Amino acid sequence: MKKYREMTREELLLEKQELERQFQEVKAQGLSLDMSRGKPAMDQLDISMEMMDVLHAGADLRCETGVDCRNYGVLDGIPEAKRLLGAMSEVEPDQIIIYGNSSLNVMFDTVARSMTHGVCGNTPWCKLDKVKFLCPVPGYDRHFRITEFFGIEMINIPMTPEGPDMDMVEELVQNDPAVKGIWCVPKYSNPQGYTYSEETVERFAHLKPAAPDFRIYWDNAYSIHHLYDDNQDFLVEILGACEKAGNPDIVYKFTSTSKVSFPGSGIAAVAASEANLNDFRKYMTVQTIGHDKLNQLRHVRFFKDLDGLHEHMRKHAALLRPKFEMVINTLDRELGGLEIGEWTRPHGGYFISFDSMEGCAKAIVAKAKEAGVVMTGAGATYPYGKDPKDSNIRIAPSYPTPEELEQAAKIFVLCVKLVSVEKLLETNIA
Amino acid sequence: MKKYREMTREELLLEKQELERQFQEVKAQGLSLDMSRGKPAMDQLDISMEMMDVLHAGADLRCETGVDCRNYGVLDGIPEAKRLLGAMSEVEPDQIIIYGNSSLNVMFDTVARSMTHGVCGNTPWCKLDKVKFLCPVPGYDRHFRITEFFGIEMINIPMTPEGPDMDMVEELVQNDPAVKGIWCVPKYSNPQGYTYSEETVERFAHLKPAAPDFRIYWDNAYSIHHLYDDNQDFLVEILGACEKAGNPDIVYKFTSTSKVSFPGSGIAAVAASEANLNDFRKYMTVQTIGHDKLNQLRHVRFFKDLDGLHEHMRKHAALLRPKFEMVINTLDRELGGLEIGEWTRPHGGYFISFDSMEGCAKAIVAKAKEAGVVMTGAGATYPYGKDPKDSNIRIAPSYPTPEELEQAAKIFVLCVKLVSVEKLLETNIA
Repeated sequence: MKKYREMTREELLLEKQELERQFQEVKAQGLSLDMSRGKPAMDQLDISMEMMDVLHAGADLRCETGVDCRNYGVLDGIPEAKRLLGAMSEVEPDQIIIYGNSSLNVMFDTVARSMTHGVCGNTPWCKLDKVKFLCPVPGYDRHFRITEFFGIEMINIPMTPEGPDMDMVEELVQNDPAVKGIWCVPKYSNPQGYTYSEETVERFAHLKPAAPDFRIYWDNAYSIHHLYDDNQDFLVEILGACEKAGNPDIVYKFTSTSKVSFPGSGIAAVAASEANLNDFRKYMTVQTIGHDKLNQLRHVRFFKDLDGLHEHMRKHAALLRPKFEMVINTLDRELGGLEIGEWTRPHGGYFISFDSMEGCAKAIVAKAKEAGVVMTGAGATYPYGKDPKDSNIRIAPSYPTPEELEQAAKIFVLCVKLVSVEKLLETNIA
Repeated sequence: MKKYREMTREELLLEKQELERQFQEVKAQGLSLDMSRGKPAMDQLDISMEMMDVLHAGADLRCETGVDCRNYGVLDGIPEAKRLLGAMSEVEPDQIIIYGNSSLNVMFDTVARSMTHGVCGNTPWCKLDKVKFLCPVPGYDRHFRITEFFGIEMINIPMTPEGPDMDMVEELVQNDPAVKGIWCVPKYSNPQGYTYSEETVERFAHLKPAAPDFRIYWDNAYSIHHLYDDNQDFLVEILGACEKAGNPDIVYKFTSTSKVSFPGSGIAAVAASEANLNDFRKYMTVQTIGHDKLNQLRHVRFFKDLDGLHEHMRKHAALLRPKFEMVINTLDRELGGLEIGEWTRPHGGYFISFDSMEGCAKAIVAKAKEAGVVMTGAGATYPYGKDPKDSNIRIAPSYPTPEELEQAAKIFVLCVKLVSVEKLLETNIA
């Protein structure tokens, strides 16, 4: 097919007419499809159902140190859970604290704690005139909402397939003491599915921050969430890299089993240096008597070890892979060569990132909604919900059934085409 | 037996000699007993074991609105959990939010939120020069640690069998805008087991705080935790009372199933006015994607309804009652008439409060420890760990087995006698 940009005004009008016709046809079907959030589909949840049976009325519910998991006690996680999530995070069990059901909650608490109590003895952020966070964009909307909620100024850092623009990161982190953190999803990033390169991780590890309380928020949400057995991304382990670089305290590494077992009923963890973990513990010890140890035990008895986790993730991959491929194939087939959009081809994670022509994303998402397909809000992948180019759209292919997804992907590309033609006609007039 | 105060110096010395002998005998046994924390005993945990089986690999894990509890979604609790904990809290389901595993965590978050974001649009407390909390004493150490952790000034309010000294509460709340809250355990209070009288609750409901963001932290931890079927305390429902008094927003009511099902693996909740709940939700919506809905479902399917909860609590009572009675009988028998201590006779909850002669509590707890009995630290029931009279000791009879408890109680009274005699001899000399 001819590139839209090379079409004459008449050709564009004809194309528009045909697309409009298709759109009205689809709209008339009154569909209700959802590609908005990184939610596992029902068949993915089904593969964890045996987890419901590993703890039963006759089971011994003591952890390996003999502590009764049914009672109070053990603030920072039972040893076997530390070992399991330590292995998943590529750190030693004593480098990790096990939390409740949500790593987002742990990140929120980490920012909240920094606001009221400061980081490792430094001035609480609420006492400072200005606190800034670096936000690789596009990125995860829920990260940005946390920093926005606490009135932290967010600075956009462009993402590349190798990770954030590290020249810009170094410049800002090393010269501005108000810069206290950076949000990272380093592996199968949200939304692009990029994995930070070895050089990027090393440059992170060797940062010399102007602020002693600067921390990298390393949200390793998709560490074992591969789509392929033979085509996996590799991420350098950040804690070890920072320690080697003489920077052991610069990073917090977050993880959870939300997209391994059950979202909302998984277990979360943070890995960090001893000094940082003790800082976390000082807060935790006042905040709670302890997290849900039965759920920790349930996870360990079900997954057993890292091999068990990997085996389980292969089952997820078998369900997710065809969905990713269907969306990418549809994008390739329908939009390839038109030069009205670009999209990523992740090897893992939960998202595909789509960049439309400038100024089209909001209109595309609105069109899709009109046709019954809910996408993540345009702009959501940027701090304050403001995508300066209005071009990024996050595609979450996991939740719909394959049949629904096929429909949704077709509607999406139709909307992209239609909005792009309209945009080009506008520009043409001007 | 003769009152210690009426003994001559010689009689006291003889008594001391005999008590010392008994103490050495006990000490030689090298016991290790724990009356320090309000932990259910193993046989209490056993009565909830069938909860492990209600969700199983073949179960339908959707809540009554059809939402799959295994997936993300439903920020503030599934409807049936709201109904169950609403009934437990004597409020409507729409007056309650279901949280994670710990009501202490909810209280902590509530203070943290007030620090950084203020209460219902009022100035964040971290921007104020001074924030004060009223602390009925003796009270719950973990409450006091939260306010201490956030640098909030704590003011002692004497407790009576009818509740806190309300003249003092009214005086402070109604005249000092820096007073932002009060910690209350209104039913079977920690540590006395007192229940606030109807007049006390009404006076709370009719407070006219100087601060618009003053809130009553009503920790109804022991609402259904009776020891007797026929001798139960009655507490006026505070939300209704406040609403009637034209003060709907003045109170947060916290509860949890920690001592109903499994401590650390229960579900927690807050009940409050719509305005307050919306204030909570604004924070929650950034803090987490949602709490553990499977555990909510597990609780509902196990307990079913309020009758189920009450029936279950009777089983707890059957195990706890003999322990309370054993301790109180030991105190009565061994210390009755000596006028060296006073103790409470709760109808529910988890604690007995003991007041020694002034200046003896620390020494008694230290003596008990020397003989192998761990008590809650003396002073712990007061803000900053400072009991001005050094006389209050919290007794937690739940955790030891009946046999251990019998030993522990005997050792405790022995230590009370010994320290009291020593104190009287000191005074005698001076």
